[in-house]
Amino acid sequence: MAAELSAVQLIEKHRPTLDRALEAIRSRAYWSPHPEHPKAYGEGGAPGSLGAAEGQAAFDALSGTRIELDQPGTDGWVGGEVSPYGPELGVEYPHPDVDVLLPAMRKAVPAWRDAGAEARSMVCLEILSRISARTHEFAHAVMHTSGQAFMMAFQAGGPHAQDRGLEAVAYAYVEQVRTPDAADWSKPQGKRDPLNLRKQFTPVPRGVSLLIGCNTFPTWNGYPGLFASLATGNPVLVKPHPRAVLPLALTVAVARETLREAGFDPNLVCLAAERPDEGLAKTLAVRPEIRIIDYTGSTSFGDWLEANARQAQVYTEKAGVNTVVVDSTDDYKGMLGNLAFSLSLYSGQMCTTPQNLLIPRDGIDTDQGHRSYDEFVADLATAVEKLLGDDARANALLGAIVNPQVKERLEAASGLGEVALASRTVQNPDFPGATVRTPVIVKLDGSKPDDEASYMSECFGPVSFAVSVDSAADAAALLRRTVREKGAMTVGAYTTSPEVERLVEDVCLEECAQLSLNLTGGVYVNQTAAFSDFHGSGGNPAANAALCDGAFVANRFRTVEVRRPA
Amino acid sequence: MAAELSAVQLIEKHRPTLDRALEAIRSRAYWSPHPEHPKAYGEGGAPGSLGAAEGQAAFDALSGTRIELDQPGTDGWVGGEVSPYGPELGVEYPHPDVDVLLPAMRKAVPAWRDAGAEARSMVCLEILSRISARTHEFAHAVMHTSGQAFMMAFQAGGPHAQDRGLEAVAYAYVEQVRTPDAADWSKPQGKRDPLNLRKQFTPVPRGVSLLIGCNTFPTWNGYPGLFASLATGNPVLVKPHPRAVLPLALTVAVARETLREAGFDPNLVCLAAERPDEGLAKTLAVRPEIRIIDYTGSTSFGDWLEANARQAQVYTEKAGVNTVVVDSTDDYKGMLGNLAFSLSLYSGQMCTTPQNLLIPRDGIDTDQGHRSYDEFVADLATAVEKLLGDDARANALLGAIVNPQVKERLEAASGLGEVALASRTVQNPDFPGATVRTPVIVKLDGSKPDDEASYMSECFGPVSFAVSVDSAADAAALLRRTVREKGAMTVGAYTTSPEVERLVEDVCLEECAQLSLNLTGGVYVNQTAAFSDFHGSGGNPAANAALCDGAFVANRFRTVEVRRPA
Repeated sequence: MAAELSAVQLIEKHRPTLDRALEAIRSRAYWSPHPEHPKAYGEGGAPGSLGAAEGQAAFDALSGTRIELDQPGTDGWVGGEVSPYGPELGVEYPHPDVDVLLPAMRKAVPAWRDAGAEARSMVCLEILSRISARTHEFAHAVMHTSGQAFMMAFQAGGPHAQDRGLEAVAYAYVEQVRTPDAADWSKPQGKRDPLNLRKQFTPVPRGVSLLIGCNTFPTWNGYPGLFASLATGNPVLVKPHPRAVLPLALTVAVARETLREAGFDPNLVCLAAERPDEGLAKTLAVRPEIRIIDYTGSTSFGDWLEANARQAQVYTEKAGVNTVVVDSTDDYKGMLGNLAFSLSLYSGQMCTTPQNLLIPRDGIDTDQGHRSYDEFVADLATAVEKLLGDDARANALLGAIVNPQVKERLEAASGLGEVALASRTVQNPDFPGATVRTPVIVKLDGSKPDDEASYMSECFGPVSFAVSVDSAADAAALLRRTVREKGAMTVGAYTTSPEVERLVEDVCLEECAQLSLNLTGGVYVNQTAAFSDFHGSGGNPAANAALCDGAFVANRFRTVEVRRPA
Repeated sequence: MAAELSAVQLIEKHRPTLDRALEAIRSRAYWSPHPEHPKAYGEGGAPGSLGAAEGQAAFDALSGTRIELDQPGTDGWVGGEVSPYGPELGVEYPHPDVDVLLPAMRKAVPAWRDAGAEARSMVCLEILSRISARTHEFAHAVMHTSGQAFMMAFQAGGPHAQDRGLEAVAYAYVEQVRTPDAADWSKPQGKRDPLNLRKQFTPVPRGVSLLIGCNTFPTWNGYPGLFASLATGNPVLVKPHPRAVLPLALTVAVARETLREAGFDPNLVCLAAERPDEGLAKTLAVRPEIRIIDYTGSTSFGDWLEANARQAQVYTEKAGVNTVVVDSTDDYKGMLGNLAFSLSLYSGQMCTTPQNLLIPRDGIDTDQGHRSYDEFVADLATAVEKLLGDDARANALLGAIVNPQVKERLEAASGLGEVALASRTVQNPDFPGATVRTPVIVKLDGSKPDDEASYMSECFGPVSFAVSVDSAADAAALLRRTVREKGAMTVGAYTTSPEVERLVEDVCLEECAQLSLNLTGGVYVNQTAAFSDFHGSGGNPAANAALCDGAFVANRFRTVEVRRPA
């Protein structure tokens, strides 16, 4: 049976996009093939894409259904997701008998391997383009599993996630074609005939790749590993977070449909949804068939994976403590606005949200004059209050609290020190069941041992600490200790002093953390752009890999050489 | 103080070589800048290089001396190497106080990091070119620590090792410059002004890199990790095998001298020679400062490192069981000669030497007619006897047995089954103290459980097993099991049947092993050429890395981004 999607068709359709992505990761200039604006989809927008109403309808139609994936070894159905906005999702997923599923996945390997790097990339791009066409539908799925507000779910869960997936495909492709398919080798032997060999080089996959998804960014954090592994020839088993199954189940469905149409075994991408409290990730992670693991989540389980899944390459993004050093600024208003937005976006439920603001206790110099520590903290509190003063805007920025643990942590935070900004409850008129809270800012003293326990731990959620320090040098020293001991996904700094800038840069270079300096406009420390920014460094305890670089893809495959006399 | 070697000088001298190496790893055609012939050095040869007599004299002059490295934290002197050829080397090395040495190495990092990828590569190439000029001297050092015969010590320990070092530098360079030093990023915002950021990207080292050297190929197996780590900005601490210190101590001395002249801190490369039974590798491996480890040696210590040195990236080459499938040939004489050479070279003390020859019990088809299993094994025995019949040639091929354990293993092997070729003792007239032995070939039955214990374990040294199997398919199945369970650095096969070729290829692609087919001339399964062949696959239990590919270098550094409004 001929494939419905021929390799030639796919190359014609997607090769220019791949080439453009390859250029982007080299230049690291701005680029994205996935529009950010909701109106770019549907009628008059991207051909074949769902518009806003169609996406909503498609999402609504999922309720009460089963996501039929036609996977081998389905031994039952599981479901039960409840949106952080209140409603039950009412979608069921196949539960796998992994003793049947894993062998079926391995059987799919040889044809996928033999297809070669370019064909695999093209199929991956087709999967991404079908997901892109359904961005409106995926946006609702991400919103109602992560608790992100709609626009953020749309952008971060849609185009930005797709960008990160495509970026991984580009890295995977270029890594595999660094070695040619074949080479003729001729070694001179003086007066004798040269030694001649014909050599063939084949990128071969490591084995089944396991993606362990997270609750807050199921697609954004999931796509890099998924597509890096698939593009390098590995079958991928997707084990979503039990509260955020839908976005990844839809992803698996699209991948399987695309693979089938392109003439490949759909079992190259399978879903492993789990029963309540099954702990399936732990079981799967140590199976001998699993040779690669991508994980985003808690430090404790990430550390467990690194220690125990020894048969696999393990890529982890864990927790960190993100710091912003506030020393001085020539745009006080811009700094306050930028910080207020960073602390508020998605209720601080991002691995990149700043937690500790390090502020000299004798205050900071600004274009609006000197501000004491207390004045600055009060000004920042006011900026957040103003940003979130309107409930509609607050809802659009904050989204919903993703789970009860975040709410508990938020409530406990006000007991940790003097509260500079209290959290308030916001009503969501569309979803009365949603838990919506503005951020709390707590004052701590960087020299008090009692306070150290607070600011040296990750307090995931809408909680920030305004930590007083002796000086910029003291801030740099505390930043260093924080990154070294706790890790950091992001570091920010505001300073007009070249010396302080150098101090903070040196810490980031030495402790391996990504630094944003003096952001006062529409770019925020918690956001990174695919093809240009690295997400995490892979060099401090917050994550052992960066999205995306050569190291993220190079060890997902190996190159087998066959040489024979020519 | 200005550096004696300016960056401009180094670029002028070495950039063309680096560019040529970059081209070679892309095309994988034959190339080497390091001549293999001893006469290419000294008068009339490479400028400034030592000729044969000068190299001998330089080596002889080392006896009774201390290798003065001027390292911080030297707390005594150690030595005591005895050549496998008999003589005591009589050289002493500084013993480190690692609590002093490691901090000094870390202090050297910032300037080396800030120098950038190109400058680091150029310094590495200068180190290699100075080592190359002393190839004759190094050859004696390798010979009298590994037991390799002079010509092999010259080639494998000299130009081939230098090639592998340069290859690692080339991979490290290209990996670091995939991301530009800086980028301007401008994101359109519709009718509003675009968002503009200036981004800087700096490759930063992981930390101190530990090289744990081996006894048999101190330079060849040591240079890839040493130069990959140094070129990516990491200081390298070299912990040689206690029986093979000299070649790496000379290497460290050259590296320190070069770094100093180029204006860098010589403590970027240090030696950690150990006292008898000190177990220094184990202590160093778990030090928090050590962030990268390169190791060649036993499976048990390699596994220990992987399990325990969790703070480090660990690259290991361990033991494997190498197989040659003998199915059929159209050049019987060529096959016998090629196999006889492979089994004899350096008394089989290579990680790449074939151990198990899998032969159908009903024999093989050849251009000289059908040969029964017994006939083939007898013919192979004769070919080895003929190859090594002349004592001078035998000495030149076999070298010396490297340590008493290999001799014990060889002696025990004749008790494992019917001996098809007995090992004989060869006298070395130049070095009466050398232990020189020809290989033993033992017949085993692939279907006998008693024999399985023998052929399914690595028997490092001049021991091969002629294992009878039911068929080519049976051979392929046993090959698969051997690679999967025990690992393999090399696989060979002889067949005229496309079906059998496909069978063996499929096993190698699926189990991730490097395959040499139908070698009958001057290329041997146990030899790989830098810039073209991969040494190991990194995908089976014999080694977790290949020499050299992107994965070998990509995780030795991380990229730190600093972004600011433009």
